[in-house]
Amino acid sequence: MKTFFSKIVELRVRYSETDQMGYCYYGNYAQYFEIGRVEALRVVGMSYKSLEEQGYMLPVSTMDVQYKAPAKYDDLLEIETRITEMKGARLIFNYAIRIEDRIIATGNTTLVFVSKDDMRPTQPPSGFTQLLSKYEEI
Amino acid sequence: MKTFFSKIVELRVRYSETDQMGYCYYGNYAQYFEIGRVEALRVVGMSYKSLEEQGYMLPVSTMDVQYKAPAKYDDLLEIETRITEMKGARLIFNYAIRIEDRIIATGNTTLVFVSKDDMRPTQPPSGFTQLLSKYEEI
Amino acid sequence: MKTFFSKIVELRVRYSETDQMGYCYYGNYAQYFEIGRVEALRVVGMSYKSLEEQGYMLPVSTMDVQYKAPAKYDDLLEIETRITEMKGARLIFNYAIRIEDRIIATGNTTLVFVSKDDMRPTQPPSGFTQLLSKYEEI
Amino acid sequence: MKTFFSKIVELRVRYSETDQMGYCYYGNYAQYFEIGRVEALRVVGMSYKSLEEQGYMLPVSTMDVQYKAPAKYDDLLEIETRITEMKGARLIFNYAIRIEDRIIATGNTTLVFVSKDDMRPTQPPSGFTQLLSKYEEI
Repeated sequence: MKTFFSKIVELRVRYSETDQMGYCYYGNYAQYFEIGRVEALRVVGMSYKSLEEQGYMLPVSTMDVQYKAPAKYDDLLEIETRITEMKGARLIFNYAIRIEDRIIATGNTTLVFVSKDDMRPTQPPSGFTQLLSKYEEI
Repeated sequence: MKTFFSKIVELRVRYSETDQMGYCYYGNYAQYFEIGRVEALRVVGMSYKSLEEQGYMLPVSTMDVQYKAPAKYDDLLEIETRITEMKGARLIFNYAIRIEDRIIATGNTTLVFVSKDDMRPTQPPSGFTQLLSKYEEI
Repeated sequence: MKTFFSKIVELRVRYSETDQMGYCYYGNYAQYFEIGRVEALRVVGMSYKSLEEQGYMLPVSTMDVQYKAPAKYDDLLEIETRITEMKGARLIFNYAIRIEDRIIATGNTTLVFVSKDDMRPTQPPSGFTQLLSKYEEI
Repeated sequence: MKTFFSKIVELRVRYSETDQMGYCYYGNYAQYFEIGRVEALRVVGMSYKSLEEQGYMLPVSTMDVQYKAPAKYDDLLEIETRITEMKGARLIFNYAIRIEDRIIATGNTTLVFVSKDDMRPTQPPSGFTQLLSKYEEI
């Protein structure tokens, strides 16, 4: 199912996240994406924490990032996360990171629902599918 | 120019790099790729440190990662880095991470030579091109 | 001069900050302290960023942490930062981290004003001393 | 029991570990200490991994660090870890980090053996006490 859910979160680049180029280290964007999708799931109504408590995990299967412009210490980042598709066990997120309306990075991740018991791909909990279906693109 | 340079480095997953899933956090792979390419450049004969001292920086422009299997605490990772192409200001790296010959992740990054003065893309230093041309694929 | 300035900031434990014990990794507290003192300095009226732009750096000279109870993923941390003393080039911060009024960690850091030019300890900028003196403990 | 065990490990400062001051970020030293003590425990004969598998965890209860001089990108750090005392459930480690024989940081951590079942302090496994007693200071 194609979905159109979108959620924006803001955060500031930490000093620890800069590198000696004077920029935010490129590896931190995976963390920013994760923060974005955690908040997106929370708004959909299914916190990541509760998913784990119900016996599910959501490891990342693929990620891509396009770095357009650097971010600096103390910059206020706006992370827009879209949930674009759920297909079998897979959930697809799309991200755009902005500083004052200027896009500095985009990216995508594919996550897979797995069962904590055997770590194998599994159908998402039906409660989640129901919650997400409110945002189905028709 | 297409190149075939390849270099393997080994490192152990640190405790700090695990997450509560019990796996190595997916965001750490960007660091592993960076360690791989730093050592690759060192073997080619041009340390990243010396590039910065000569007034160049090499920010990452794109990254993609395919996560095939999890890595765990204390696992010994073998990171194979290939330099596959240099094209204008761009340098393309390809990575494979293995645990005992089993591939756990693959990925690619595009880096761009920029001048420290104006942060604009620039031709790589001629010394570097010369060093890399030893590995040109014909 | 002894001072009594205090500032509270809140943040959530990120997934990337957990380790396989299921707790927030002990090394992250240095980052939390830094976030606390950055916001403290901002409220005093002297952002860390502007200090660097004026040619000062504030490296940490000592840190101690007492871990009382674990923090978990998604916990909302309340970081209270006090500036307790300025003595020559040294600035002393004291921290308490709480989850719902329960203290989970305390700590202290000593920072030293150094000049960017020669990286030697130096008097703080007079503007900063003036701003901080509003909070002098008499 | 007072002990005199000591173990040295080497590692290079990663690019991701630098900050915009151009130095290794102060928060990383907790990771370096952890790497030092993990290797120390391995040499004593009890890997941290096997301790966890036997149902023990070793959270850090206190840490202090004295930063003497900065470390930079690509610096080769020599981390010397001493196990200085075991007292009830507590294990005390002492660290010195050097670059070419020059001390750049020292520190201490107290760790506590806890049982995975109830997360309460517990006696160390007898096998560990026996292994460590070879290094008892008389």
